[in-house]
Amino acid sequence: MQTKNMRHPGILSSALCATLLAAGAVQAEPVHTPVTDKMLLEAHKEASNWLMAGRDYAGTRYSPLAKVNTKSVKRLVPVYSFALGTLDAQNTTPIVVDGIMYVTASHGKIYAVNAATGQELWSYSHPLPDNIGKMMCCDVGNRGAAVYEDKVFYATPDSHVIALDRETGKVVWDVVIGDWTKAQTMTVAPLIVKGKVVVGMSGAEYPTRLWIDALDANTGAQVWRRYTIPEPHEPGGDTWGDKDPDAGKYGGGSTWITGSYDPDLDILYWSTGNPNPDWDGMGRIGDNLYTNSTLALNPDDGEIKFHYQYTPWDVWDFDGVNETILANVNGKKVWLHGDRNGFLYNIDRTNGKFNWAKEISKVNWATGFTEEGRPIVDQTKVPTYENKAMNVCPASEGGKWWNPMSYSPVSKIVVIPSREICVDILAGKAERVEGKYNLGIAEADWIKGYGQLVGFDVTTGEKVWTVKAPSPFTSGVMTTGGGLAFAGTPEGEFKAFDIRTGEELWSYQTGSGMVGSPVSFSIDGKQYIAVPSGWGGWTGWATWGGKGGAPHLKNMRKGGIVHVFALFEPKK
Amino acid sequence: MQTKNMRHPGILSSALCATLLAAGAVQAEPVHTPVTDKMLLEAHKEASNWLMAGRDYAGTRYSPLAKVNTKSVKRLVPVYSFALGTLDAQNTTPIVVDGIMYVTASHGKIYAVNAATGQELWSYSHPLPDNIGKMMCCDVGNRGAAVYEDKVFYATPDSHVIALDRETGKVVWDVVIGDWTKAQTMTVAPLIVKGKVVVGMSGAEYPTRLWIDALDANTGAQVWRRYTIPEPHEPGGDTWGDKDPDAGKYGGGSTWITGSYDPDLDILYWSTGNPNPDWDGMGRIGDNLYTNSTLALNPDDGEIKFHYQYTPWDVWDFDGVNETILANVNGKKVWLHGDRNGFLYNIDRTNGKFNWAKEISKVNWATGFTEEGRPIVDQTKVPTYENKAMNVCPASEGGKWWNPMSYSPVSKIVVIPSREICVDILAGKAERVEGKYNLGIAEADWIKGYGQLVGFDVTTGEKVWTVKAPSPFTSGVMTTGGGLAFAGTPEGEFKAFDIRTGEELWSYQTGSGMVGSPVSFSIDGKQYIAVPSGWGGWTGWATWGGKGGAPHLKNMRKGGIVHVFALFEPKK
Repeated sequence: MQTKNMRHPGILSSALCATLLAAGAVQAEPVHTPVTDKMLLEAHKEASNWLMAGRDYAGTRYSPLAKVNTKSVKRLVPVYSFALGTLDAQNTTPIVVDGIMYVTASHGKIYAVNAATGQELWSYSHPLPDNIGKMMCCDVGNRGAAVYEDKVFYATPDSHVIALDRETGKVVWDVVIGDWTKAQTMTVAPLIVKGKVVVGMSGAEYPTRLWIDALDANTGAQVWRRYTIPEPHEPGGDTWGDKDPDAGKYGGGSTWITGSYDPDLDILYWSTGNPNPDWDGMGRIGDNLYTNSTLALNPDDGEIKFHYQYTPWDVWDFDGVNETILANVNGKKVWLHGDRNGFLYNIDRTNGKFNWAKEISKVNWATGFTEEGRPIVDQTKVPTYENKAMNVCPASEGGKWWNPMSYSPVSKIVVIPSREICVDILAGKAERVEGKYNLGIAEADWIKGYGQLVGFDVTTGEKVWTVKAPSPFTSGVMTTGGGLAFAGTPEGEFKAFDIRTGEELWSYQTGSGMVGSPVSFSIDGKQYIAVPSGWGGWTGWATWGGKGGAPHLKNMRKGGIVHVFALFEPKK
Repeated sequence: MQTKNMRHPGILSSALCATLLAAGAVQAEPVHTPVTDKMLLEAHKEASNWLMAGRDYAGTRYSPLAKVNTKSVKRLVPVYSFALGTLDAQNTTPIVVDGIMYVTASHGKIYAVNAATGQELWSYSHPLPDNIGKMMCCDVGNRGAAVYEDKVFYATPDSHVIALDRETGKVVWDVVIGDWTKAQTMTVAPLIVKGKVVVGMSGAEYPTRLWIDALDANTGAQVWRRYTIPEPHEPGGDTWGDKDPDAGKYGGGSTWITGSYDPDLDILYWSTGNPNPDWDGMGRIGDNLYTNSTLALNPDDGEIKFHYQYTPWDVWDFDGVNETILANVNGKKVWLHGDRNGFLYNIDRTNGKFNWAKEISKVNWATGFTEEGRPIVDQTKVPTYENKAMNVCPASEGGKWWNPMSYSPVSKIVVIPSREICVDILAGKAERVEGKYNLGIAEADWIKGYGQLVGFDVTTGEKVWTVKAPSPFTSGVMTTGGGLAFAGTPEGEFKAFDIRTGEELWSYQTGSGMVGSPVSFSIDGKQYIAVPSGWGGWTGWATWGGKGGAPHLKNMRKGGIVHVFALFEPKK
């Protein structure tokens, strides 16, 4: 049986160290310890680790570590850097287990790294088809790995899910779950739930039909598949209009953001993206279930227990795929979801009932909500082939874009990377040809806006602070027990803010735009903060037509590095 | 007339600052000041700047700055990083003029950067032919820029020399001086001498004939060209044997390392590389002038005043292209040159006479020198088609590889990045086909060795310290007024040593292998140290046949970042 000490190599190795060093070993290596179900269930209590992309099953991205805090953060400095060996979108969230970092890179790579020193322990590079970039809307990126027992899991752009031995980096299993030539591609960080590797799919900018898969962690065998678009005869199959008999084949519904899990309710929450084609809704009049929704699933068989749909009949590419954070707010079990449609949602996670929605940024496509929580659409903001919808707010990338927000259960504040930007859109007829990008836009003119980071008190639903910036915060956010919120910009600035006030307390120029997510961990009592830097992905906000909010980002330098920070100590 | 203050934007802008900040300008921009001949002549005194690749006309790479010193270096931390936007060999030396850094990247890019903040001021990207990488032996790298008056100059892989306006990054002139399809490629950092942009060529691993060019800095017009291989009727034309009438066309003689200049003697020193083919000397029996030499040139017309040849009839690819550092040693004007053939040379720079040569690493291809300074070759170490020369020391990459050494004129110590490695070689018949790589190796087996950094007291010619390492130091070296020597490793460790003892005082893991060179500069009295990180180039030592000293480098992660360091100060 595993003991507490065995899980803490720092403590263990201090005993071993003398022997090792005497024997001429240069450096004590971290010890690979199995990641148990119990550890995952209590990941929020694992202060020294970051065991899954969202840090815990609630997806808070809140680290309780507090040595780096509002007072000490001014002494935060880089302690090492780790090159990811690739360029393009570095969308990853590193995972850290007992002093070892598992970090994915763009273009199908993954590394194990000594998280105290930056020394590479092993690397694995999945060979990719030459043309894979042509079948991905938004760069050949990856959002992170997952760990369970002695394995680390990640998904590849060409839809392999791969399990590697955590100690050696050798392939244990490698299964293909989608056909990348049909745009069934993968960027998701897997979630481990009850011995299963749960993953979602990218690709709804192309005519395809997507799903969530649960694979056996030991073998890679499929346990269940949940398509997000029903066949015509299934529940929701009647929400695509009579003009769209092929919706079940081509209706999109991506699932590329990692879900959350409530072990008490035994419900897996996973969100779904836009219908296909993105903007052209003329051929699919109806609610287009289950797009732009969060699905509450039975983790054992993938059955939908209930759902909440953020944007019925999405004709703005609002793409409700964003994460759900499970929180207990004013005594209620809810999920929090910041949507590209501009709203922050509070939804009852026991039944999917709407509690409230608040504007993260200016919203005018909806004028409010019905009592049941259905948005009341302003019809003048609906782009059709004839009607150019003017000044639609927000534009498709938010509100809140995909980059994850973070929730501090201590301060009850959720910190949302956001942007204020609106758009004029004329829809265009989009043919559905397999493997062919079909957004359904005839014209789209972005109106110059700006970026912001916003803090909401979820107990009141009030926006308590806003930090404005010339361009959007494009990294994920992390909140900490030190009273801090960390976030990064497309210009490469990694910043720390006071979570109570939004006051900027610290920043570091990382060299390239930031589209990954920060994490924190500790080794031998020392707190570290790691963040990927490396620009890429869909950067339309910045550059489309040169009218975006940040045209200076058009030539932003690509990169690929993880910077790791700690409080300054002079070198020995 | 330019005043001292006008050249120091920090001082000037403190006056302007209040106005600018009051007007809402976010940050005072550095001011672009012209680089005069006087500044270049006194570059060694320009403590705050780094005005040319070798820092000064003597090529010392010695910065007099001393705030970062043997006592304070333990507080050195990164203050920003700058992504170069590319992968592959980042061989550059940044240039810094009054708070602005000009830094080249691999693949034809150059940037101007606010050297205090890391903010990009402009970038320029020269479009490259798709196949350029196939016509370069050692990656699509670049070794740095040069500055003069209002322009910055750099060379591109496809043999353009480009002058850009330093303030705007706009092209002022762009001239083509070589034919890359014939392997006349460029990686050199230009040297500005008397209003001319002096550049050299890469390519002698292919059958070609190379040269040094001097271009008018205002127009790019050629002022002179010095071919390094004579026509048969020219002096030295009789040193290629009667079997090689085409030597004047194909004899190689690269010039890709920046030269030095003695303004008192008015002599330009520029070194030349190996003959072609590299190892197969059977078709070119003779001294093969002017390969493997340092040429003393008249900077006005390129005439050869005298020369010293390090390796006559090079059949080991010793490639004497390395830099010359001009030093005054024991009252004598000399140049110092660390060669891939394993020797550190002290040569009289007034006449090219040999003073002494000392072993940097083990040498056995030569048993000593004649009184005139000609190496006495051990014939058993000469590989021929029939004779496999066993255990030749050093192997072709050093001794000292191309990465520049540094000389402190204060401590009189030269610090040399080096390696101990030997090789078994059987020569192979190499056809000369234009555009076709022809090394002339039938078999080559590297013998496992190790890396080292060595300090020589040049007044005695004695090796005063050696730092051993598992793999060679592959960055350039910088020495400083703080009594430090900085150097980097293929594993990405950037290290500071006590120049007197070789004691390691500090290190930082930069994330990728280091094959560029560090520099130091100051802004408003604060000392900065910048170093590129990004693995690439010829890495045969590590990986050839898996028998090199460092096979773990075979999959070393590529990168592309400049890390900039300063002494720790808490953030405001």
